[in-house]
Amino acid sequence: MLPGVGVFGTGSTARVLVPLLRGEGFEVHALWGRSEEEASSLAQELGIPFHTSQSDDVLLHPDVDLVCIYISPPLTRQIAVKALGIGKNVVCEKAATAVDAFKMVTAAQYYPQLLSIVGNALRFLPAFVAMRQMLAEGYVGELQVCDARVYGPSLLDQSYGWTCEELMGGGGLHTVGSTLVDLLSHLTGARAMRVHGLLRTFVGQNGAIHGIRRVTSDDFSFFQMLMGGSGSGRGAGTGTGSGVCCTVTLNFNMPGAFVHEVMVVGSAGRLIARGTELYGQRNGGNGEELLLGDSGGTGQEVKDVPLPHLRGLGSMVTALKYAFQAQEERRSWARGPVAMASTFEDGLYVQTVVEAVKRSSRSGEWESVEVMTQEPDPNQNLCEVLQINKN
Amino acid sequence: MLPGVGVFGTGSTARVLVPLLRGEGFEVHALWGRSEEEASSLAQELGIPFHTSQSDDVLLHPDVDLVCIYISPPLTRQIAVKALGIGKNVVCEKAATAVDAFKMVTAAQYYPQLLSIVGNALRFLPAFVAMRQMLAEGYVGELQVCDARVYGPSLLDQSYGWTCEELMGGGGLHTVGSTLVDLLSHLTGARAMRVHGLLRTFVGQNGAIHGIRRVTSDDFSFFQMLMGGSGSGRGAGTGTGSGVCCTVTLNFNMPGAFVHEVMVVGSAGRLIARGTELYGQRNGGNGEELLLGDSGGTGQEVKDVPLPHLRGLGSMVTALKYAFQAQEERRSWARGPVAMASTFEDGLYVQTVVEAVKRSSRSGEWESVEVMTQEPDPNQNLCEVLQINKN
Repeated sequence: MLPGVGVFGTGSTARVLVPLLRGEGFEVHALWGRSEEEASSLAQELGIPFHTSQSDDVLLHPDVDLVCIYISPPLTRQIAVKALGIGKNVVCEKAATAVDAFKMVTAAQYYPQLLSIVGNALRFLPAFVAMRQMLAEGYVGELQVCDARVYGPSLLDQSYGWTCEELMGGGGLHTVGSTLVDLLSHLTGARAMRVHGLLRTFVGQNGAIHGIRRVTSDDFSFFQMLMGGSGSGRGAGTGTGSGVCCTVTLNFNMPGAFVHEVMVVGSAGRLIARGTELYGQRNGGNGEELLLGDSGGTGQEVKDVPLPHLRGLGSMVTALKYAFQAQEERRSWARGPVAMASTFEDGLYVQTVVEAVKRSSRSGEWESVEVMTQEPDPNQNLCEVLQINKN
Repeated sequence: MLPGVGVFGTGSTARVLVPLLRGEGFEVHALWGRSEEEASSLAQELGIPFHTSQSDDVLLHPDVDLVCIYISPPLTRQIAVKALGIGKNVVCEKAATAVDAFKMVTAAQYYPQLLSIVGNALRFLPAFVAMRQMLAEGYVGELQVCDARVYGPSLLDQSYGWTCEELMGGGGLHTVGSTLVDLLSHLTGARAMRVHGLLRTFVGQNGAIHGIRRVTSDDFSFFQMLMGGSGSGRGAGTGTGSGVCCTVTLNFNMPGAFVHEVMVVGSAGRLIARGTELYGQRNGGNGEELLLGDSGGTGQEVKDVPLPHLRGLGSMVTALKYAFQAQEERRSWARGPVAMASTFEDGLYVQTVVEAVKRSSRSGEWESVEVMTQEPDPNQNLCEVLQINKN
């Protein structure tokens, strides 16, 4: 039995998510927007019966059993944790900071019977499902290098907001880079041990953002990850990705069609996902072969949502349907269909890598990726000062 | 009047160079090979009247006025410097070390009336000539990022030799990366101030190299250059490239067709050279436009010589013809047609960058690019030891 859905957010992802959910038979009962106007406008457009700007009104809505959170990163943690506390299943986007991500992990561990996934749609894209499968089957031999690049137009909103602000989770690294960090770990079955990166903000002001306001979030970034042993233990093979170099290049000063390319190179061949299609070439073979084309399906490129994300989102919603439909209870779900999803633990790892890359860009040095195992004490600095004064 | 030519080298570049020279009307009088057999075999194949394994026999050959040196890097300095000393014009490839490159600069400065160029064919490729021109004309607006990538099959020779040995100038960074370092400086009119890099040797042994022998040269590298003020003062515009980030990815574990792509991104658009063709896209324009196709011309891809290098070599030989043909003396030449060539000073800069990238790969840190201004004293270490013992 499919659960009723409440959607948080009125941005481009929320806008494409609602029709995808309905296409799979989910009913969307409630919509939350930052302001009454935004919520009302999109609810009317999409024909959603209830809208609000009060998060509790959605969380406590009796028909809502699954909460999808696609809002600005600084608000994500609060709503996700509260939703779990009220006993709702949660699909959300990344948090703003590692501390937030840690709090989400704690909540998810406290309610293990509830679904809690960070909805990185790329993991569900058929091209990457196939790539992971073929990596495990040894298509490329021993994995050596992963190379990902995404080029596209500016990620900034029309008006000043969190997308402009590095500390609020804006910028290419946080928004798009994090999905690649997650994907590469998922594909290789390994986690970044050390990272090195370079971030730039080339466009500090534009027609909409001027005067005393400046963009602080990155529009260009470039980072390397040296992968170590198996992370979540759920990767393709165990530790096949140990010793692998991953390089990621992101450039959002390139209006026009999105370029979204992920290549994995090994001793015996390579696999390349260009957009939503998968290509492969074996050493000694007859050039590149198309391994998986784009079957078309749900619509064309939507503004601000690159095709790989859109298609992946569609596959993720389908997986959610399979996870819920055979269950008798509206809130029960089967793990199998969503086993490949990114967990909140994965979300914490990703956030840790993103912060290490930012640190590296400031320090100019390789930075270790050390995933938090306990929440930092917010009074620690204060305690240290008291300690010093006592002596 | 065209000068008679002597060619050093029997490798793939020398093999394609001889027909190109003849195609423009140059006569090739002499060929040097590392061994009598190699020299004799290629001389016979190409119909070159004289061959030898003694370098002086070519350098002192009365019909040779222009010496083209395409040999292993550790031998380049010695032959280039000697050739200039004997009064011959020199076109050569890069040296093995910055110290060698510095000695070549000293020799070139001592004989300013002689032609002395490091034959980086990419500078002459019509796609890059056009790219540089359009950069100067502001096609991309304010330049932000350059991104170059070359993927191809292994650079190792069939048998153990300098290509396997990092210290002898083997490896992707030294062989191919150096041509990109030179090109990016030429295109942007700026020089790298700081670099960061990562080098890997994924294939340490193969069918031909085994037992106690191991490959030490890199087959994968990845480096960033932060560009500073104008270098040679001959770039497109003056200092347009200051503050630009350049990223270079080289992977030579990818059998099949070479991928050779150089992209420059600015505030108003971008230019992309794919292989020998140039594409451009202006922000707000109607997608990508082909700006310069490949006119075909001299043959197809030759084994071990990527098409951009082959075509560039053809254009360079044509430029050499124009430099010499209007002159009365066989050894005189006009600067104009070869003004865009890489000088020995450029060669020293490139070698300095290559060494800084290697240093960065070992240290893990950003390294400054400091071009040598005087030859390091080979006795310096000894002196320091004596100094210490005296105290």
